Amino acid sequence: MQKRKFVSVIGGSQSSAREIRLAEEVGRELARKGAVLVCGGLGGIMEAACRGASSEGGITIGILPGDGREQANPYVQFPIVTGIGYARNAVVAKSGQAVIAIGGSYGTLSEIAYALQSSIPVIGLGTWSLSRNGQPDDSVIPMEDPVEAVDKALRLIQANN
Amino acid sequence: MQKRKFVSVIGGSQSSAREIRLAEEVGRELARKGAVLVCGGLGGIMEAACRGASSEGGITIGILPGDGREQANPYVQFPIVTGIGYARNAVVAKSGQAVIAIGGSYGTLSEIAYALQSSIPVIGLGTWSLSRNGQPDDSVIPMEDPVEAVDKALRLIQANN
Amino acid sequence: MQKRKFVSVIGGSQSSAREIRLAEEVGRELARKGAVLVCGGLGGIMEAACRGASSEGGITIGILPGDGREQANPYVQFPIVTGIGYARNAVVAKSGQAVIAIGGSYGTLSEIAYALQSSIPVIGLGTWSLSRNGQPDDSVIPMEDPVEAVDKALRLIQANN
Amino acid sequence: MQKRKFVSVIGGSQSSAREIRLAEEVGRELARKGAVLVCGGLGGIMEAACRGASSEGGITIGILPGDGREQANPYVQFPIVTGIGYARNAVVAKSGQAVIAIGGSYGTLSEIAYALQSSIPVIGLGTWSLSRNGQPDDSVIPMEDPVEAVDKALRLIQANN
Repeated sequence: MQKRKFVSVIGGSQSSAREIRLAEEVGRELARKGAVLVCGGLGGIMEAACRGASSEGGITIGILPGDGREQANPYVQFPIVTGIGYARNAVVAKSGQAVIAIGGSYGTLSEIAYALQSSIPVIGLGTWSLSRNGQPDDSVIPMEDPVEAVDKALRLIQANN
Repeated sequence: MQKRKFVSVIGGSQSSAREIRLAEEVGRELARKGAVLVCGGLGGIMEAACRGASSEGGITIGILPGDGREQANPYVQFPIVTGIGYARNAVVAKSGQAVIAIGGSYGTLSEIAYALQSSIPVIGLGTWSLSRNGQPDDSVIPMEDPVEAVDKALRLIQANN
Repeated sequence: MQKRKFVSVIGGSQSSAREIRLAEEVGRELARKGAVLVCGGLGGIMEAACRGASSEGGITIGILPGDGREQANPYVQFPIVTGIGYARNAVVAKSGQAVIAIGGSYGTLSEIAYALQSSIPVIGLGTWSLSRNGQPDDSVIPMEDPVEAVDKALRLIQANN
Repeated sequence: MQKRKFVSVIGGSQSSAREIRLAEEVGRELARKGAVLVCGGLGGIMEAACRGASSEGGITIGILPGDGREQANPYVQFPIVTGIGYARNAVVAKSGQAVIAIGGSYGTLSEIAYALQSSIPVIGLGTWSLSRNGQPDDSVIPMEDPVEAVDKALRLIQANN
């Protein structure tokens, strides 16, 4: 039944106008391609991506940190009420088959880390890059264009299945 | 956007034939009424409820304990991969606006407890009943008929909103 | 190295004077017997048990729901800052090798359920009792005396090892 | 009561001989200074740090991902059995007042992210360094010497209180 592809879009609640535009376009493109958008369910990048997806009739899941569903942004169709605080970042990361990170702060970094730990591919639009003990770690795939980022994410899911 | 009603159906992975029939009918009735079925995503009661909902075109969300989406029963449309083990029971309980418990063992009891702690109404079909310090606690509403249980759940959600 | 025995004491933050006295005596007796007291780290039963243990030089661990260690009651020596809200109840239950429940509300019930699910023995002092589908479930061992409850808990740990 | 300082030592279960030596010395120095060592409770860096602390009579807490206390390395005095898998990384990070990261892979990166999100200082010995959108983020304080790393951690805790 789970023929749909699930992509997690991650990024902070505080974002630049440019990041918001990127997130909205990522959401739209995911919807056009029939993929389900998973996110943390709050504002900023999460809301922009959900708004984009909704505008194209896409499906949106919001995995909320708190105890109330009213915390969800208005474009979340399926709120998951975890009550586990920011430990829910692990759930956001793992519930996607690929992750697209847009900007973001330390919460986003934790989600990137969880995705990479679970061998889930991560595509970055102006987000974190990493070095370990002085050596660059290229696991986050840097991209510029939101439509191409979505296409890359969906191709990587295909390849992993 | 969240105009849909969300009902969590809880119960064990090991169940009697009668419990399985109840769960399937609960799932069917939730779907007929346009409610979203939330569950723990695994077998037994969870699978029967999802199968019932799917047979009527309903929406099913499975909140999985482990790290892999392949763990979901085949009727889960939207798997949430928590990786937090049975602490995910708190998430199953809180993601519903009402809970229907069918049979079940200690995992189900923990979900009932979490729902009641969050003031989410719980309807029981042959499940746990409780006494505290020798006094009966009537919080779990006992019912017999799966269709009436669903109707009760949906009315209680209405009343709480 | 883990030769010490670990006993979780559970119960609500709102408790009667009698329950508080029971909790304090349970804490004292655990300390006298050299057992480590695990609890949820907050007030009420948790604080009374920690106070009792501290008065006899015992060791106390508080597994906190929130994000700050200042949330711990003043008798917690080792605060664990989970940030996962009441899903931390699963951690409180599992970190004991036996559980003593004193009074308590639905949070306590969830801890009892988690302990029983993990085959951890539960001793009850004026707490929940359970029936499943109309049949009494005797898993919670009812006792009256706090010193005997501790001795029972420690004997059950012995027997399980 | 919580006059002790708590320092989380993080790093992978697979580590080089040099990292193991660093971790052991960090553990020893924490014990000499009377600080409590918090870690993930498993092997590699976690075990080496606990071994070092134990050799100097220090206190060690291990916050385990799984459901069994027997999973703890032999130098963990106080095992916390979370059962929440790698979402326990958030608990390891938050239960320290400062974090010392030694080497490490993506799990360690998630712990660094959680600590920084909670404004807990992070000292790195040959671990991750970060850039955000092309700009270096200097939040992880790089150091070379394990004794100096501990002293820095303890001074930062002092300053924050």
